[in-house]
Formats: sequence, C-alpha cells, structure tokens
Amino acid sequence: MNAPLPGQLMPELQLRPVPPAMLEQLRARFAERCSTAAAVREQHGRDESPYPVTPPEAVVFCESTEDVVAAVRLAAAHGVPVIPFGVGSSLEGHLLAVQGGITLDLSRMTRVLKVHPEDLTVTVQPGVTREQVNREVRDLGLFFPIDPGANATIGGMAATRASGTNAVRYGTMRENVLALEVVTAAGEVVRTGTRARKSSAGYDLTRLFVGSEGTLGVITEVTLKLYPLPEAISAAVCHFPDVGSAVRATIQVIQMGVPIARCELLDVNAVRAVNAQSRLGLRELPMLLMEFHGSEAGVREQAQTVQAIAGEHGGQAFEWASTPEERTRLWTARHKAYFAGMQLNPGCRSVTTDTCVPISRLAEIIDASVAEADASGLPYYIVGHVGDGNFHLAYLVKEGDPQQRELAERLSMQMVRRAIALEGTCTGEHGIGLHKMGFLVEEAGEGTVALMRQLKRALDPGNIMNPGKIFSL
Amino acid sequence: MNAPLPGQLMPELQLRPVPPAMLEQLRARFAERCSTAAAVREQHGRDESPYPVTPPEAVVFCESTEDVVAAVRLAAAHGVPVIPFGVGSSLEGHLLAVQGGITLDLSRMTRVLKVHPEDLTVTVQPGVTREQVNREVRDLGLFFPIDPGANATIGGMAATRASGTNAVRYGTMRENVLALEVVTAAGEVVRTGTRARKSSAGYDLTRLFVGSEGTLGVITEVTLKLYPLPEAISAAVCHFPDVGSAVRATIQVIQMGVPIARCELLDVNAVRAVNAQSRLGLRELPMLLMEFHGSEAGVREQAQTVQAIAGEHGGQAFEWASTPEERTRLWTARHKAYFAGMQLNPGCRSVTTDTCVPISRLAEIIDASVAEADASGLPYYIVGHVGDGNFHLAYLVKEGDPQQRELAERLSMQMVRRAIALEGTCTGEHGIGLHKMGFLVEEAGEGTVALMRQLKRALDPGNIMNPGKIFSL
Repeated sequence: MNAPLPGQLMPELQLRPVPPAMLEQLRARFAERCSTAAAVREQHGRDESPYPVTPPEAVVFCESTEDVVAAVRLAAAHGVPVIPFGVGSSLEGHLLAVQGGITLDLSRMTRVLKVHPEDLTVTVQPGVTREQVNREVRDLGLFFPIDPGANATIGGMAATRASGTNAVRYGTMRENVLALEVVTAAGEVVRTGTRARKSSAGYDLTRLFVGSEGTLGVITEVTLKLYPLPEAISAAVCHFPDVGSAVRATIQVIQMGVPIARCELLDVNAVRAVNAQSRLGLRELPMLLMEFHGSEAGVREQAQTVQAIAGEHGGQAFEWASTPEERTRLWTARHKAYFAGMQLNPGCRSVTTDTCVPISRLAEIIDASVAEADASGLPYYIVGHVGDGNFHLAYLVKEGDPQQRELAERLSMQMVRRAIALEGTCTGEHGIGLHKMGFLVEEAGEGTVALMRQLKRALDPGNIMNPGKIFSL
Repeated sequence: MNAPLPGQLMPELQLRPVPPAMLEQLRARFAERCSTAAAVREQHGRDESPYPVTPPEAVVFCESTEDVVAAVRLAAAHGVPVIPFGVGSSLEGHLLAVQGGITLDLSRMTRVLKVHPEDLTVTVQPGVTREQVNREVRDLGLFFPIDPGANATIGGMAATRASGTNAVRYGTMRENVLALEVVTAAGEVVRTGTRARKSSAGYDLTRLFVGSEGTLGVITEVTLKLYPLPEAISAAVCHFPDVGSAVRATIQVIQMGVPIARCELLDVNAVRAVNAQSRLGLRELPMLLMEFHGSEAGVREQAQTVQAIAGEHGGQAFEWASTPEERTRLWTARHKAYFAGMQLNPGCRSVTTDTCVPISRLAEIIDASVAEADASGLPYYIVGHVGDGNFHLAYLVKEGDPQQRELAERLSMQMVRRAIALEGTCTGEHGIGLHKMGFLVEEAGEGTVALMRQLKRALDPGNIMNPGKIFSL
C-alpha cells in the first residue's frame, strides 16, 4: 500500500509523458483550443489547495461531449492521464497533474440544455456554475439549493459530492443529481439514471460517479433536482458567548427536527475577517447565521423555536435580515469568508479541514480543535455547516514556510483522527484529492479502499482518469 | 448480449451443483441450521413474483456476520451461488435459485445493535423488519419512515433500494442508509460510510451496495437515518371522479412544493378490494390517501392547500382520519391492498408493474395504461406512490394460465416502454430481479449495462453472488 501518510506534504511526481504524436493529433483536432503555453498550463496546475503548482503538459478547451470523447480516446490510446477541470476551486489538490498528462478545461461547456419546470429538473453541461443555474431558473419560481460558497461548476460539484450551506435541509449533490452523461475511460458516452425521482434499476452508477473526483470518467451532462422558491425566506444572525454554545444550540435545533434551511457557524476570527472585508459591522463574537424557508407562518414558527433554543444557550437576541438585499449582503459575506480570511493574512495559504461528525459529537470536536489551534499560535478561522455536523477550520500558513505547513498538517491530522474516533468522516464535502489519501485509509480501512481500487481498475484499466487521486494504485 | 427479452417468462435454469464435500462442510459448521429438507428449500425458492418455485440446494440459517462469512467462503471456494434471503417479499424473482446454490436465510439476524437518538441514527442487523425498527425507537420519539407496505427486512429493503409510501417526503433507502457492513464475494467483511450525515470520502460504496440485489455481497449491518416523530400528523381521504383527476391534483401538489408526507392513489378496484377485506366502507371511487406531518399549524396549512387543489380537480370533500386508530386502520388497509387484491381473485398470481416517471407525465402514462388494462379484460388494480411519479398496476392472472400471463407481460412491457419514452424508469422501487432484466437494457442502454457488468466482475469474479439477476453475464 503506497497511500501517503496523513499530513504528507506533496506526493512524488510520477510523470507519464505525452508523446509528440499525441500532441500533434490534439493540435490537429483542437487547433488553438489545445494549449501548451506556460501560463495556461500553470493556471490549470493549481487550485485552492496549499500544494505547489503542478501543471499538465497541455490544456484542451472542450466545448462539447464530442470534444471530450476525442481527447479521452487519444489519451487512452497513448496511456496519458486526463484531468477534468472546471473553475479550479478544489481545496484538496484534485487538479494537480501529479502524473503529468493533459487537462480538459470544461469551463466553456456552459449550456443549460433543458429546463423542465413542471418536473422540477434541469439538465446542464458541466461548466455551468451554480450561480448560472439559479439565474436561469429564478424567473420560473425555482432554485437549485446546493451552495458550496464558491461559484463552482456543476461538473466539479458533482465530481466532489459537494454540498455547503443548504445541505442541512436539501441534501448534497448525492441527493440532488438525478442523471449523468459520462465519457468513460475508454472514450464511450454512457448515461446513468433518468429524470424520474427514484429508481431501483440496477447499480446506482449515478452515485458512483458523483464523488469519484474525475477518476472514473468525465462528467459531460448533469440532471439536477430543482425546488420551488419558498413562499417566505428569512435570515437571522445570533451571537453567542463562545463557539461551544453556538454549537450546542445547533445540536438541539437538529435533534428537534426543525427544518432549518441554513445554519452556519462563524467563529470570532471569521467574523473579524468578513467585517474587515465587507464592513458588515457584526459584533465580534461567535455567531450563527441562519435561514428559514417555508410559508409565512411556517418560517415564523421555525424562527421562534430556534430563538428559544438559542436563548437557552446564551444566544443574544436575533438580528433579522428583513430585506432580500440585507440577506444577500450577509450571505455574500459568508461566501467570501475564505478569501476574507486570506486577506487578513497576506502571503498565506490555507490548510483547510473538512471533518463531519454525528451531530451529538460536534461540540466535543470543535472545542478540542479550537483549544489546539489556540495553543499552536497559527492564525486560523472557523466556518461551519454545523447543522450537518460539518465544519472547516482553516489554518493560515505563510507560503513557503515548511514548519508552519507541517504544524498545520499535524493539527489537521489530529482533528481527522478525532473525527474518525467519533464515527465521523475526514471530509464532509471537499473530497479526498491528494490531501486526504492517507486519511481515507484510516477512515474506511484497507479492505474498503481495496474495493475502491478494484472498481477503479475495472472502469479505468489504463489508470488514465485523474490518476494518483483518492488512493494510490 | 444474453439479456432476456422483456416479457420473458422464465429464464432457462443453469444449475451449478453444490459438491457433496461442501454440503458436508456446511453441516459441520451449521449442524441443523443447514437444511436440505424439501419444504425448507421450496419455501426459499419462491417470492411474491409469478415465477415457478425454484429452490436452492440448501438453506443456511445465519445468526451472525461470522456465519455469513463462513458460508460465503465455502461457496467461494467451491464456486457455488449464494442467495441472501430476508422474508421473501420480493416481487421480481430475486430469490429464485436459477443457478442453484445455497440460500442464506438472514431472518434470524434481528438484533438492533445501536440506537443513537441524539444523532437520529440506528444500526441494525439485516433481518430486522421495518416494523421492528419502529417499535424499538417509538418511545424515543423517533421513527423510520421508509415503508414499502410489506413488513420487509431492512437488509432486503437496502438490497432492492426500496421506498414506498413516505418517500415523497423522506426519500428512499438510497437517501436513508448511512453506512453498511457487507460480506464480499471473497468472504471479507468491509464497512462503508460512517454515522456522519454526509461525506465525500472516496467512492460511494454504500450507494453501490444499496440496490445491488445481493449480486455484489451480503449486507450484514445497516445504519439508518431516523426522524423525530412529527408534532402533528393528520391523514385524509379524498375521492375523485376518475384516476386522471386524482393524478392531476397530485401533480399540482408536488409542483407547488407542498411537503406532503404520503400521497397514495387507489383506483376503484383497489378500493373495492380493501373494502371487501377490511370493511372500511370507503366510497367506491378512485381516491387519494394522504398524510401530513409537521407542527399543528403547518399540518393545517398543508391540508388546506391540498384540499383547495383537490377541489379544482373534482376532488370531493376530505374525510379526515382524526384519531390515530382510524389512521392506522386506513394505512393498514392500504398496506394490505396487495393481498386484498389477490383474495378478490382466488387462484391468481400478480404481475405487478413499477414504472416511475417525471411527475408531469404521470397522468399520461396512467391514463394510457388504464385504457389498455380495461381493454384487455384481465382483472387488475392500481395503487401508486403518485407523489413520486411511481405507481403499480397489478394484473391478476390465473395461476398456470400461460395465455393470461403472456397477455399481462405484454401489457407490462408496453407500459415500461411508455415510461422509458417519457424519461422514466422501469422500476421505481422493486428492483430488476429476474423479471426486468430486458427492461434494464432498454432503459439504460447496452453501454451502461456493460459498466454494471464490469463492476460485477470486479467485485465478484466467480459470479457467485445471486447470479443471473439484474443482468446476464
């Protein structure tokens, strides 16, 4: 087993060169849409992870499923790695060309192919972003809830099984992808699933490709569930004396079955960062940022219940975002927390954790992690989809400072081991990528990872699809 | 490709004999828990499908994961088929020993292993039935919503990706299984998933085993999501002049996003059958049987909205089941519709369809199917989880009358083709089994079924796990 140990900084590169003949064939097929320019390659050899830039040998800008088929068939014929790329918002090194090869940039595949408002479904190309989906369906009275913060592509979100702020009520990409079109490692186009809401028709290939991080095929079409825009939406901020109190209030809300739509924790460092960037004037205390969806009466009722619970845990009076503008301002600030945190610490990269635990254990893991982070002296902030038991502690480390990076990785590893001991997972929504390959083995066990390897070998015998990610072969 | 054509009555048996040495080893390990008695074998060689009894060579009553491991390892060593068996409520021939081999009866594995009320999870052995789960957690103020009607085992429900009356609100087994323990075809014990509500940790093996119909391994432990019992529950019956009106009312309820908990259609034949069996005195008209979950005010609000919609479609005044007893009586009758329908037609077997379509196409497919069924002269009834776009038309055919059986199969095939043309599925919740192998190829396409075969070969190279089901190899 060659899985890197938890906390390993960067795997050794095992480059598989692109033969000149293949490059020629790519150029013949794609002309200027196949680029080997250093700037283009470098832009595609990095993501939001703290790894060094690791560029592919060429970038192919695909505009259709046929383009993807053509590129994958060439790669298959030459045994060359293929990395699908959306907007580069991965936090885990998914996009680094650790075995060389070509990157397929899918960001030009931005067509919304079919909207079926009467069935609450939409079918899109993989380069469509979540904001674009919502722009396209808003006038129909519909929305797509999955919201990882970044304006990621739907293809990337499907590939990493993303979720985010609305998952506590609406689920993750696992629950919201109905059907896929996928180009396999052999360059064949297959379809999985249908537009029916449920099905027992054979193996759940849709769920197998969702979360496969580009290692089993290239997703070229995604059919998503949509939801009617709620009759009423209200958002509220509630401050707490400490992070633990905010978390304990959340636990009670979930245990009571309140159908809260969003329940986000920001620690005092995150509040300071968004205040500095967005001049929100929030009180500099840990806070929950919440949203309620339903009928007018239902939303009122939910909010009253949550307010009462918050009060029991030292929560200070709710501040309501009564207008849509104010609500948007708050959520925009939340979504910018990542970059706001970075800006407070210029020259830093972020080592971001993503543990998710059964809800009753959330206070325990957050309390312990905060104590360790405080003791470490590293700057950090916490944001969390706490209604799911999922939170992110971002350690901010000076770029090029290996000691800080190692310290952050050690703290991250301790947190992951704690999450696993509490029957949780090392990653709620970011995926394994490069960064968590060792953690996956600790979490799932060798036998279970061995099954994953068997599936990979069955569907990608040449190991060309985003090789070196999730597990080593 | 050897997939049977749609409507094929019974595949040719390809028996793989159990070597005497293996039988001896089984007897040495399991003593009287390994049975070759004809009555026991026959009881395990049938299910609720219309196929002839096709018994295994031996039945092993497993009481632990270790028992399953021991039996599977022997079967693997001798290349003998293994069929997991719960209570035999499959409708699609899943349990028939079409390649011989041994059946593992898991119905004695009835321990509820862990309840975590604070996390809304429960972990059970596969022989626990859904009613048992609910008995065990009711006093904690919790419930498990998935309800296929039959008191099926949780293992069987996971294996077929079952759902039923509550799926419109709470999802199916796909959404409600958090983690599994599985004995692989090699006799290894693996665990998939954790108790965290969401995870992006590698391939979604949980979802791969859910719905794999025993063809990839034996499920020996299931961790399920639970839900707080709603503060208020109300049930109502509403009669409609015809099936189409009831369906059109349902479509509008779903499109408006009303969080209805159950929305069941019974056609006039189903109403007559449950009246005859349960003396309910329901008006003999097509009806919707609905349930609303939420706060007192929320339930009232939902019911008002639905009542208004029903009125627009000719629905006659709601009759409320105001007491829990009355509610239970109505739902018990609904759950007995299958057996009630059979009793109205003694000496009959049922050929049951299970199509599921995008909600906007539901009236179209039901109207066409009713017209064809009426014209056929076969007795039939319809029950449907219409909020999901899923319904069952059961053709009642005289046992041993091949012409009636063929007619029913032809009507069923026409309905499936219609569902596929409407972007739906041949099976919403019953699975493929033997009966729908041809339909799976029509629905998913050869390329997609070829991927499923590759997965099967990777995880079960000896083809011992419930062989001959879902697809032919």
